[in-house]
Order: sequence, then structure tokens, then C-alpha cells
Amino acid sequence: MMMTDNNASDHLHSELILRPVGVVRSKLKEPSLTAGEDDLESDHDMEGVMKDARKIRGMLSEIVIDSRFDGILDGLEHFSHIMVLYWPHRVPDEKRGLIKVHPMGRKDFPLVGVFATCSPVRPNPILITAVELVERRSNTLKVRGLEAVDGSPVLDIKPYNPHYYFVDDVRVAEWMKRAIQEKTRK
Amino acid sequence: MMMTDNNASDHLHSELILRPVGVVRSKLKEPSLTAGEDDLESDHDMEGVMKDARKIRGMLSEIVIDSRFDGILDGLEHFSHIMVLYWPHRVPDEKRGLIKVHPMGRKDFPLVGVFATCSPVRPNPILITAVELVERRSNTLKVRGLEAVDGSPVLDIKPYNPHYYFVDDVRVAEWMKRAIQEKTRK
Repeated sequence: MMMTDNNASDHLHSELILRPVGVVRSKLKEPSLTAGEDDLESDHDMEGVMKDARKIRGMLSEIVIDSRFDGILDGLEHFSHIMVLYWPHRVPDEKRGLIKVHPMGRKDFPLVGVFATCSPVRPNPILITAVELVERRSNTLKVRGLEAVDGSPVLDIKPYNPHYYFVDDVRVAEWMKRAIQEKTRK
Repeated sequence: MMMTDNNASDHLHSELILRPVGVVRSKLKEPSLTAGEDDLESDHDMEGVMKDARKIRGMLSEIVIDSRFDGILDGLEHFSHIMVLYWPHRVPDEKRGLIKVHPMGRKDFPLVGVFATCSPVRPNPILITAVELVERRSNTLKVRGLEAVDGSPVLDIKPYNPHYYFVDDVRVAEWMKRAIQEKTRK
């Protein structure tokens, strides 16, 4: 790879520091996927993983923003949906080097690059979900459909802006199409 | 805020380290918004900002993933759209404490909490856009509609998974509705 811009090259080797802004409070205590020696692993069988995913869809959880950010949520109550960025804190740091995985740890899915999956094990493990904002009360947000386990550090909250996130007419890989069908099945 | 879970409390005060995985190559050389003393600022007038936004919608740019991640994009070519997470490197670190801003630096919009906006100035400045994946060639992705300026460090790439990101029937704040109408106007 040619790097003609020294400034960009510098950035590539720098470290960027994040500090959590809050925490997730959820009935969900254990992640459904963990990092194995060289792939994702699940404690449940395939049907169990899919059952969990369906349950989470309607589940309520809370996001508690730290009091040093008082006021930073003002105006968020005018949005029906928000993007939640959080850190999968149960993934050990030394697993961040994984390059390829079976999506959701399922060996019936093809082995693909981590960036072609939603794996929690990735170089910069930032997970994102669009969730329904049910209620804002001061520094606490009640949301529906958040997959984050209890105690997950929250990195950022954004309003769901259709200009940036809404994509109609999307085409996904065959394995993901199957996974979504199984997840949303009644 | 009560913190009954010591573990979560620890996480709230820890630092999380990110390392860029690649860089954006774009014709866009200057961000349209910068951080002023106590609000966002723009070099352009309001009409200029909106004209830029409309131009970006159809613009092609490249994302070059560093060679130490060879293979991490394998399978991404089966998706029509991807989520790009990047770092607004032109925002000085000391501005990350801003709590309230006028969205897009526009004084005709209400002063709201940073988490109710898409401001690049935020505690953990991670920006996200869903873009069309036009082509993948080895470690380079050609995408359409990425607002990131040239040289922006890339943090993560994810496939656009409708299960996580697609929201229909979304309600947004009045100011954002106006901004989107102005941006998408022919």
C-alpha cells in the first residue's frame, strides 16, 4: 500500500483514546457469542442463539449516562429511534487480531473476513444498534431491542438520522439473509 | 447516579484504545464544520453547507485498509451497502468536552445536547455513515456518499445489516427534518 500522505500515515499508527460515557442496564447477563481460540463460539446451540435474538427484539433495557455529561441528552426525546454505540467488554483484548470467522460461530455459514460480519470480536470492537427510544428521563434512556449485555460500557448516543443510516433496497450475503429470516421468524 | 455494580463502575473510568485500520481517500479536503470556542462553526454560509451536503451524496471515495489486515474484507463484496466508522481527525481533542451545540453550527436551529445531534465534536468522536459499496478490490473499497474528509482514520467496516440498522417509520426532531429537506432538495 502506498502512503503518500505522511499525515495520514501517522494517524494509522497512532492510538485513539475512548472513555465510556455511560453503562447499559439489562436483563441480559451473558453474551450469546464468545471468542474462542480461532473463531467465535456459542454456549447455546444454533436454535438457542436464534431464540435469544428473537427475545431481545422486544426487550426493554436502560442506558444510564454519567452525571458529568448532564444536559448532553437534551433534545433527544424528539427522536423515535437512536443509535447506541457500545463496547463488548466481555471480549478479551488479545482476541482483537482475529481476521476471519464463521458468522455467529455457525460452521454452516462460510468463513469470511471479520469486516463482512457483525462479530463482536474485531480490531476496534465498537458495536452499533438502532433501537427504539421508549423514554428519556434525565440521564436515563429506556430503549427497546438492545442486544448489549448488562454492564456494557456505552461510547456514544446519536439520533437515528435517516440521511445517514436509512438504506432501502439493500442486498446482503446469502448467509445473512438466512440468519435474519431465522431471527425474525415467529 | 447509583452505581451498584462495581465492575461497571470500573469500566466507566477506564480508557479504551482504538487503532485505525485504514484511511479515507477523498476529493473532500476540508470539513464543512469545525469546533469553535463553545459551538460548532462553519466557514461557509448556510446555503454553502447544504450545497456541499448535496454534492457529497453522489461522490465517490476510497477506503484503503492497511495490509496487516489482509483478508479481513473477504465476503464484503456480497453486500450492497456498508457502515463506515471513522474518526474526525480535524477536531482537536480539547473540544470533546462540549455538552450543547447548535446543530451544524446553525443559530436558527435550537441549542441541544451533543447526543441529540450528529456533531463531529462529541466525547467519543466516532462518525458513522451507511454508504453504497461500489467495488471491492483487494484492500481497497470504492464507496459512494461518504462525508469523511481525505486522510480520515477508518476505525471499522461493517456490512449494512437491516436487522440492526434499518428503521422504517422514524420520527426526528423538527430541526433535523428541515435540514434533511434542504440537503436533499434538487
